[in-house]
Amino acid sequence: MSDSSTVTVCVDAAGGDDAPQAVLDGVVAALAHDPDLDIVLAGPGRVVEEFAKAQAPRVRALATSQVISMEEHPAEAVRQKRDSSIVVGCRAVREGRADAFFSAGSTGAAMAAATLVIGRIKGARRPAIATVLPTRDRPTLLLDVGANADARAEDLLQFAHMGRTYSSAVLGTADPRVALLNIGEEPTKGSQLAIDAHKLIAEQVPGFVGNVEGRDVMAGTADVIVTDGFTGNVSLKLLEGTSRVLLGQVKEVLTASLAAKTAAAIVAPGLRELKERIDPDTYGGAPLLGVNGVCIIGHGSSSARAVANAIGLSARAVRGGLVAGIRDSLRAPDSTP
Amino acid sequence: MSDSSTVTVCVDAAGGDDAPQAVLDGVVAALAHDPDLDIVLAGPGRVVEEFAKAQAPRVRALATSQVISMEEHPAEAVRQKRDSSIVVGCRAVREGRADAFFSAGSTGAAMAAATLVIGRIKGARRPAIATVLPTRDRPTLLLDVGANADARAEDLLQFAHMGRTYSSAVLGTADPRVALLNIGEEPTKGSQLAIDAHKLIAEQVPGFVGNVEGRDVMAGTADVIVTDGFTGNVSLKLLEGTSRVLLGQVKEVLTASLAAKTAAAIVAPGLRELKERIDPDTYGGAPLLGVNGVCIIGHGSSSARAVANAIGLSARAVRGGLVAGIRDSLRAPDSTP
Repeated sequence: MSDSSTVTVCVDAAGGDDAPQAVLDGVVAALAHDPDLDIVLAGPGRVVEEFAKAQAPRVRALATSQVISMEEHPAEAVRQKRDSSIVVGCRAVREGRADAFFSAGSTGAAMAAATLVIGRIKGARRPAIATVLPTRDRPTLLLDVGANADARAEDLLQFAHMGRTYSSAVLGTADPRVALLNIGEEPTKGSQLAIDAHKLIAEQVPGFVGNVEGRDVMAGTADVIVTDGFTGNVSLKLLEGTSRVLLGQVKEVLTASLAAKTAAAIVAPGLRELKERIDPDTYGGAPLLGVNGVCIIGHGSSSARAVANAIGLSARAVRGGLVAGIRDSLRAPDSTP
Repeated sequence: MSDSSTVTVCVDAAGGDDAPQAVLDGVVAALAHDPDLDIVLAGPGRVVEEFAKAQAPRVRALATSQVISMEEHPAEAVRQKRDSSIVVGCRAVREGRADAFFSAGSTGAAMAAATLVIGRIKGARRPAIATVLPTRDRPTLLLDVGANADARAEDLLQFAHMGRTYSSAVLGTADPRVALLNIGEEPTKGSQLAIDAHKLIAEQVPGFVGNVEGRDVMAGTADVIVTDGFTGNVSLKLLEGTSRVLLGQVKEVLTASLAAKTAAAIVAPGLRELKERIDPDTYGGAPLLGVNGVCIIGHGSSSARAVANAIGLSARAVRGGLVAGIRDSLRAPDSTP
């Protein structure tokens, strides 16, 4: 275990489409960026041991004999493959040998392992996956984006508490504005779930600014947007898909003729910056909130840069006291300032 | 009533932010575009009578004494204001004095009036609002986008039938591919509602291609995408909001410097075309499916162009036999080719 100022992040070397290389490169970048960071690398023996030797003493190896693939049934795979990098990594967090776990492997398996092995925070009904949206001025956190396809109003209430804590403890937002994703502004609008959740959140969560509609999600009018995992997952993927299609069409316009190409060269740096801003790699990982440890899940397509950013995020979550903060928020919701 | 080849559309002169002028201009444009079209104009006496006189005999006036505002409770307003343009317009359809009704006024009121005054098609559980998304090559129809915040699997089954009929009868799609909006591709993924709906639709709706995820919505992989009104409304508004924010940011890049502005001038026509393609005005209106008459609802912000397009859409729906087609599809779902 690390000394008080150093954070130890356990990283799944087998997770992601470009594993292990993208993961190893990401670890190198993260270590270079943060001198108070140590890594425990879980994965196939030969890979992790060789890498740990080269990066000693800041990287230690945690050799595992099994791998959970993206195709396997998450909960079954976690139960059966006790020596997979995902299960072993979560065990390292539970046993205090690491402060956080990051995987770009199967989201479902990471979620199942975190819930089964690390366990939920006392009082947390269901974990939620949160993600930072590419809004411009301040980050907007959307949750749940898919941990639970079905949710109850009490779940959304907890998502509001957990999201608020994450926004303040990890993203550094002062007095986060919390909103409920809905199909109208008035408290009486929406599905029964949304109406019930609005009432609970309005009563119990500080900084609640009411409902936001789909058109407001990217407008930065809230710091935390709460919804059920079905709506959140559809929304996140729709946002990514729409951005990709639109920027692709802009690119087509800019390459339609020789004159357009000349013009495009002038504005290319600005457009690249825009594309980068909305690129999920910039954020690197989505926290699983409600489990009793810091657990960050990456896109399957995570690049080395995404891995490095996610490891940085994991360390920030540990240093910000995320888990203790969530525990407090769920324990005494209405006494939070 | 019109002769066999002429379609009569009843238009709400009082509906929309820019009424009556945008509506009147839209009517003029629609009449110029379609020689086999007549208009019945419902709205404040002075406005509609003067206009009908100028446009006689193709426009007839239906003077009304009441207006339903956007702020009123839809169902209550419809019950109380029997002489509002929305109620009177729907009555004209029910009594056969018009073949279709279009309003850019309160969506809720138009929906309530259509349901209460025109009535539902026999066997239709709940009406749904459908909208054409700005995908590129072929139009994609998304429904429900907000008629019902809560839905059951049986409702989604009917939405699939109705959307398929609209796509084929009005949008001219041969053998529409019908998909269910979900958070995974496998039939067992998603909320309980999505799982149950998948089963029903797979059993009963021809051309069902399975689940699509949020990222596929704009990709044109389906002609009809079925979802509940909550998810659909959030998705539609998110799509509009994301497009607006992104194109705004592209515009900023293109005006950031003098050199960029010079470059922007070259690509401006192409970008304008792109913006126009994703502009809701291009589509003009959203059909309310499941009611016993053609009823098209416009954006509150409908321009004259949007009004003209919506009137054209209404006429196409009448000529395509939309209502009879939906009646058939709901009557004998599995005998449809």
